[in-house]
Amino acid sequence: MYRTNTCGELRLADKGKKVTLAGWVQKSRKLGGMTFIDLRDRYGVTQLVVEADAPAALVETATSLGREFVIQVTGEVVERESKNAKMPTGEIEIRLAGITILNKSVTPPFTIEEESDGGEDLRAKYRYLDLRRPPLQRALALRHRLAQEIRTYLDGEGFMEIETPYLIKSTPEGARDFVVPSRMNPGQFYALPQSPQTFKQLLMVAGYDRYFQIVRCFRDEDLRADRQPEFTQIDCEMSFVEQDDVLGMFEGMMRSMFKNALGVDIPNPLPRMSWYDAMDNYGSDKPDVRFGMTIHEITAQAHGHGFSVFDSCPYVGAIAVPGAAEYTRKQLDELTEWVKRPQVGAKGLVYVKVNPDGTYKSSVDKFFAEADLAAIAAACEAAPGDLLLVLCGEKRKTQTMLGVLRIYMGGRLGLRDPKVFAPLWIVDFPLLEWSEEDQRFYAMHHPFTAPKPEHEAWFYSDKKEDLERVCANAYDFVLNGTELGGGSIRIHDAAMQSRMFEVLGISKEDAEYKFGFIINAFKFGAPPHGGLAFGFDRVCALFGGQETIRDYIAFPKNNMGRDVMIDSPSFIDQSQLDELQLDIRQPEA
Amino acid sequence: MYRTNTCGELRLADKGKKVTLAGWVQKSRKLGGMTFIDLRDRYGVTQLVVEADAPAALVETATSLGREFVIQVTGEVVERESKNAKMPTGEIEIRLAGITILNKSVTPPFTIEEESDGGEDLRAKYRYLDLRRPPLQRALALRHRLAQEIRTYLDGEGFMEIETPYLIKSTPEGARDFVVPSRMNPGQFYALPQSPQTFKQLLMVAGYDRYFQIVRCFRDEDLRADRQPEFTQIDCEMSFVEQDDVLGMFEGMMRSMFKNALGVDIPNPLPRMSWYDAMDNYGSDKPDVRFGMTIHEITAQAHGHGFSVFDSCPYVGAIAVPGAAEYTRKQLDELTEWVKRPQVGAKGLVYVKVNPDGTYKSSVDKFFAEADLAAIAAACEAAPGDLLLVLCGEKRKTQTMLGVLRIYMGGRLGLRDPKVFAPLWIVDFPLLEWSEEDQRFYAMHHPFTAPKPEHEAWFYSDKKEDLERVCANAYDFVLNGTELGGGSIRIHDAAMQSRMFEVLGISKEDAEYKFGFIINAFKFGAPPHGGLAFGFDRVCALFGGQETIRDYIAFPKNNMGRDVMIDSPSFIDQSQLDELQLDIRQPEA
Repeated sequence: MYRTNTCGELRLADKGKKVTLAGWVQKSRKLGGMTFIDLRDRYGVTQLVVEADAPAALVETATSLGREFVIQVTGEVVERESKNAKMPTGEIEIRLAGITILNKSVTPPFTIEEESDGGEDLRAKYRYLDLRRPPLQRALALRHRLAQEIRTYLDGEGFMEIETPYLIKSTPEGARDFVVPSRMNPGQFYALPQSPQTFKQLLMVAGYDRYFQIVRCFRDEDLRADRQPEFTQIDCEMSFVEQDDVLGMFEGMMRSMFKNALGVDIPNPLPRMSWYDAMDNYGSDKPDVRFGMTIHEITAQAHGHGFSVFDSCPYVGAIAVPGAAEYTRKQLDELTEWVKRPQVGAKGLVYVKVNPDGTYKSSVDKFFAEADLAAIAAACEAAPGDLLLVLCGEKRKTQTMLGVLRIYMGGRLGLRDPKVFAPLWIVDFPLLEWSEEDQRFYAMHHPFTAPKPEHEAWFYSDKKEDLERVCANAYDFVLNGTELGGGSIRIHDAAMQSRMFEVLGISKEDAEYKFGFIINAFKFGAPPHGGLAFGFDRVCALFGGQETIRDYIAFPKNNMGRDVMIDSPSFIDQSQLDELQLDIRQPEA
Repeated sequence: MYRTNTCGELRLADKGKKVTLAGWVQKSRKLGGMTFIDLRDRYGVTQLVVEADAPAALVETATSLGREFVIQVTGEVVERESKNAKMPTGEIEIRLAGITILNKSVTPPFTIEEESDGGEDLRAKYRYLDLRRPPLQRALALRHRLAQEIRTYLDGEGFMEIETPYLIKSTPEGARDFVVPSRMNPGQFYALPQSPQTFKQLLMVAGYDRYFQIVRCFRDEDLRADRQPEFTQIDCEMSFVEQDDVLGMFEGMMRSMFKNALGVDIPNPLPRMSWYDAMDNYGSDKPDVRFGMTIHEITAQAHGHGFSVFDSCPYVGAIAVPGAAEYTRKQLDELTEWVKRPQVGAKGLVYVKVNPDGTYKSSVDKFFAEADLAAIAAACEAAPGDLLLVLCGEKRKTQTMLGVLRIYMGGRLGLRDPKVFAPLWIVDFPLLEWSEEDQRFYAMHHPFTAPKPEHEAWFYSDKKEDLERVCANAYDFVLNGTELGGGSIRIHDAAMQSRMFEVLGISKEDAEYKFGFIINAFKFGAPPHGGLAFGFDRVCALFGGQETIRDYIAFPKNNMGRDVMIDSPSFIDQSQLDELQLDIRQPEA
């Protein structure tokens, strides 16, 4: 070992010890003949000092050190004169007897500190230097800690981590697969898994009972912000369970992660909210319940006052923004512009100010008397000083817009503290979604999701309105407005699966072509089973109080799916293409 | 939950309890009006009984059950009349009050028992049924247990598990990469990693100090028996360490795995053997030290007796096979044929029988007097009753053949008990290998492996014989004749790395092209570091006492790299090729 101690562990109790440390030069400075060096490693920073009367060679070496040099030092732990309460090692320093330069460093292209002066592109190119910065070290340490907690919890609950293959088969449905040409089978391809869904269900058929895996998944999508072509999933499945068993097990996992990694207690049991309530009250299937400001329907109060915009809409809804009655005309105009942006898509915004003095002021005063506005305010449970923001239109669409507006206003009012954690389950999703365009039902989750047992009669009904109200045994885990995971109880009964395909308008032949392999496996005694998957990158980011996942992935790709550090993807040798018997099409002139 | 208990947990102490179990029908039989059913799940087997006087409907259901039906039963735990000491649940049975068939099963294509009647191909096709068999359940349970032990140990030692990317860049050296076409960057490809070597070294540059990962790796090789195109590695790297630190850390990991997963104590510290000793005494760089029968050089004793075959060879060596002096002429002829097979490649085999009565009998009696044979026997430390098997030729080649013969004879004599574990480190590998053909040196490990500090003078020498005797700071972990892992201390010094490229005859330009990215990263303060990787599939197999890895992988591929269960690789849609802008070459007519 090049060291007796790390740079994070020495304390006043170690005073007088002769120690050897190794690490990177964070900075050095001269002060009255003495040289002070901050030595950094993963574990912390320790101050080193070379006295003015030290041997000349030592002083010279100390003076020659540049930023990020790797050095090994020997010396004695001494008490500092001016202690630094902000540093865990701040009560001591090392009076040096020797310095060995283990490696020099050219000047790094940006500062390696809590906050860097490097731009995003530059830091991405030199990711191995950016990764030296404490925020990234903390992020990856948290990720490691969470992975350990997950494994310890699930192992304790009798789950087995079973590795499933990465070279699988391209499936004709769903998102786009990454494919891998097979040299030994020219013209044929493997596909990289979008998730181990098929394999985990097979493991249930195989009797493994409780499976999990922290596993990489791949999706060749056009990348949106904060999406990665490869991402990590906590993938789980259980046999002989009902929905309550799955929810209980995995909120237990989350509880232990919050407790052991963050020291945070979350409610036991976790709140559950039906999809219908989430849509009605939060305008989102992933509600941020850290704050109220819920959506209120005011259709009854809004209709029949001669305001044709409201009267022509099947739904009118509002949120009451606390303390915003004092917004200026300019601020209200800005809000109106904000909701009219294509990302929200509202046609306009009606406001009602619930003034602290008991009066009302609204953009539709012409149509609504004080008493009418009071009735609206009452329906919204508004308090004096609140600002009501009203949208109208088709019900779910309007609720969604109000939900987006609610999140925006919550942010403006500082109600979305990333250190506050409000997890909950969303349950009772509709099983089916009717497409007006295609005049058919689609599975809201996937075609293997089971209907709720109490809705089975509706599921076998021929009436559209019956099918529309069938709820699925599906569930999402939502934290602070982000869906961290979800899953369902699967259909294990062949007759029910056939009915599902019938409802979805999938012919027997089509079902056989698309899902034949798994349907066949299910003929050999499939147990009742269900499971879920969490997006681990996002779990880490939210636990770390961040919205973006990139800092929680050691070597992420950019929005073009490119790793700018290693410059990948890249062209390959012609000989490789020859072996694969592939030709790249030349772009047309 | 569909059950109150698993099929493996009820004991006599549970007598009288009302329980609900769920699982698969292992078998059922009628006996004097009663129906006995063996119910199986991952946890064990429990006997169920339907009394002759049970309600008719219950008897009827019990009678209707087929193999591998999934059922849920309720009943009472009762003491068995005829107990089965071989089953953990063998003292009780469940007197049934009800049976619910959760799912039927068509007849499985092979028996699902300890030993199956299904052939390998059939079991591969129905892997999800083969996986129900207890030996495979035990194999995957062991794999899970070992993975947990590894993580617990390394986490306790301050290692962080850090995920590295799977979509990386094709490298111009080494084994063949699997490549992944990038749709968003037409004509460009990602590569799947053969190992995270570059990334783990970057993580050391980034200051992560102690890294590990249980990680999938990919190699597009022409498959030999028991090789998989995707395999799992325990990948580790440490900073500020010397060779002893790495060996100590990872034999500690192995020690905890042996202790906690198998209850086996391995020596502390583990034996270490130099590569030279391994070759001289075992004819292998992965010696099986569960038994002796080491190789002895008898060149001095063999030369000069007029036997031109010996006299013309630079090396003559032998092994003494205990108790085999009584081999018949036929057996000796068979052995001779065995070593002459191309897999061994010897030209012939000389034997010397050390008879229990003190006489000698040899195939070269014509040239060697009793005293000469006695001298050979003495050099081989042979005991009365031993059979000496003698080969001659070029030294290392002959030792290797003797090593193969030794392993074969060890197997024949039952000295290779898979339940006996004899791990050791092989150290002091030569750094360089001279290629007579290319008239240049190659790196024995890889070009980033550091020479031993005490051999540095030779490393900088211009003499071929000096360079040939430089040992590397490299090490292999060997168990029972199998290399389970290996690694090295890496070069972190730019000047030493340049010297390495010079020795290997790699020009500056070439080095820049092939390794430029990592060389550049090393300019920013690379710490001294080293590490190793273990082949996790093989670790699991050997811990399980098996030679083949296939049972320790949930969904393996066959020797053609094909997953016969999901039928992959396969052809993909033309639309996918169009999106990737790729064409498959048509085979020439």
